[in-house]
Amino acid sequence: MNKNTIAERYRALQLHICAALEKLDGQAKFTEDTWERQEGGGGHTSTLVGGAVLEKAGVAFSAVHGPVTDAMKKQLGHEGEAFFATGVSIVLHPKHPRHPIMHMNVRYFELEDQTYWFGGGIDLTPHYVNPDKAISFHQSLKAVSDRYSTEFYPKFKEWADRYFFLPHRGESRGVGGIFFDQLDESCGLNKEQLFTYCIDLGELFPVVYNQQIEGQRLNAPTKAEQDWQALRRGRYVEFNLLHDRGTKFGIYSGGRTESILMSMPPMANWAYNHEPEEGSEEQKTLSFLRAIHDFC
Amino acid sequence: MNKNTIAERYRALQLHICAALEKLDGQAKFTEDTWERQEGGGGHTSTLVGGAVLEKAGVAFSAVHGPVTDAMKKQLGHEGEAFFATGVSIVLHPKHPRHPIMHMNVRYFELEDQTYWFGGGIDLTPHYVNPDKAISFHQSLKAVSDRYSTEFYPKFKEWADRYFFLPHRGESRGVGGIFFDQLDESCGLNKEQLFTYCIDLGELFPVVYNQQIEGQRLNAPTKAEQDWQALRRGRYVEFNLLHDRGTKFGIYSGGRTESILMSMPPMANWAYNHEPEEGSEEQKTLSFLRAIHDFC
Repeated sequence: MNKNTIAERYRALQLHICAALEKLDGQAKFTEDTWERQEGGGGHTSTLVGGAVLEKAGVAFSAVHGPVTDAMKKQLGHEGEAFFATGVSIVLHPKHPRHPIMHMNVRYFELEDQTYWFGGGIDLTPHYVNPDKAISFHQSLKAVSDRYSTEFYPKFKEWADRYFFLPHRGESRGVGGIFFDQLDESCGLNKEQLFTYCIDLGELFPVVYNQQIEGQRLNAPTKAEQDWQALRRGRYVEFNLLHDRGTKFGIYSGGRTESILMSMPPMANWAYNHEPEEGSEEQKTLSFLRAIHDFC
Repeated sequence: MNKNTIAERYRALQLHICAALEKLDGQAKFTEDTWERQEGGGGHTSTLVGGAVLEKAGVAFSAVHGPVTDAMKKQLGHEGEAFFATGVSIVLHPKHPRHPIMHMNVRYFELEDQTYWFGGGIDLTPHYVNPDKAISFHQSLKAVSDRYSTEFYPKFKEWADRYFFLPHRGESRGVGGIFFDQLDESCGLNKEQLFTYCIDLGELFPVVYNQQIEGQRLNAPTKAEQDWQALRRGRYVEFNLLHDRGTKFGIYSGGRTESILMSMPPMANWAYNHEPEEGSEEQKTLSFLRAIHDFC
């Protein structure tokens, strides 16, 4: 299980997910943009806009290598001469406010001295929280995680709760999910098992998104729903630019801006001191996001 | 010239600017939101939405005090037990894409040991660069600055060029302006003179904005102009959340989120890898922003 095999299978995962999302959308197709990195490696960034379900979706693969930068040393707390990193990132911004934003990232990092680890996560950000859908989302993550270690889900769920949080708002980004980093053999699983866990999560992504949007008979969105969606997208922007470690690390270390900011919503709004009406669905969502929940 | 006098005159400046902007807009009025800070002090945040000229405007005054926090020590490189800070911040997001975004901040900071300094800046962010308007903007800043020191404008203009820059885009936020920080008596002027400079800049703000929007016979915005405005507003969001020191310091140190993020546009768009058409006005603006210019 060497780094090239991992990169190849991540690339295949990207293509698989794009195909599944095109099928789910039924209308729009992904456009692939291939790029190279001067210091070594490159990627394929696939984006879809104006779909029947997905207003904007990005599925990015990259495999990059080169000398360890000062920014990396600082962030990683690891020394080393050269690094290799590969992964797949996805963000879906649906058209309908009753459909959720969903994000995933799986990644592999290795240093010259063969130190390696996996990282990743999946999290769900509904514009309107539906507790039943949140429970089924978490159950799916738990089911896959439990196949590898029953310690994974509880630990990674809590990690996601801490990570996908906007301290300046006192709000969770959404209903959470799982998040993990620096996962290596010290957890008791070997490299191949850890990698397969990441692939399983990746393959779960389109399945779970399908579950999230199915079985809902939706009317055309109202102006109130669209306004709320735009405000929640504003929160998504705030999280990504102010708190998301991957985004900040990428931007400040001179990463490829367009691929990093692929996560931005197609549009977002801000209103001063906006508070939804007492008892409204918007207010219920906000209350939900201001607390921590157990789902499984 | 003690801190209370400075705060009172900044508050009066805020009210003066709000009145001038209401007159300029001719339609919408500011709403004032008064808040207190648990650790000491508070502020008045005035916002206007849905005007004839201004889609969203914020004019904020604050005067806060309390123990110096760890975050402050780190950012300021100063030790001290207690601080006092007061200032006025403004951001205008106009409705018409042919009108520019404009920002100003003037502030005063003092430590218990009587160490003090002034900071501030004014900068202009047109959605469409008009070089003549950029020149007249800079000439106004230079004229006021020269009354205090002929060293100010060249030094503070260059500081603004460095500061209002998006390294991840290789673009200036706009056509620059002036920026200064930690300005104290070591520059050869006394405290009262420095303060009067800040007040003069504040009073210049509505006058200059008026100059920017006058003498243009505008048609109703086209879809292309509105789309471009939304993308440029996206850049404004990126600058504020990724690079603006005041915003980041405020958010990460637990400042008042709504007052800090008053600078956000009412809405903003993101599109993957957007490049304007060769030879278009949008492309000319982008080329302009990718270079440094002298205006005076």
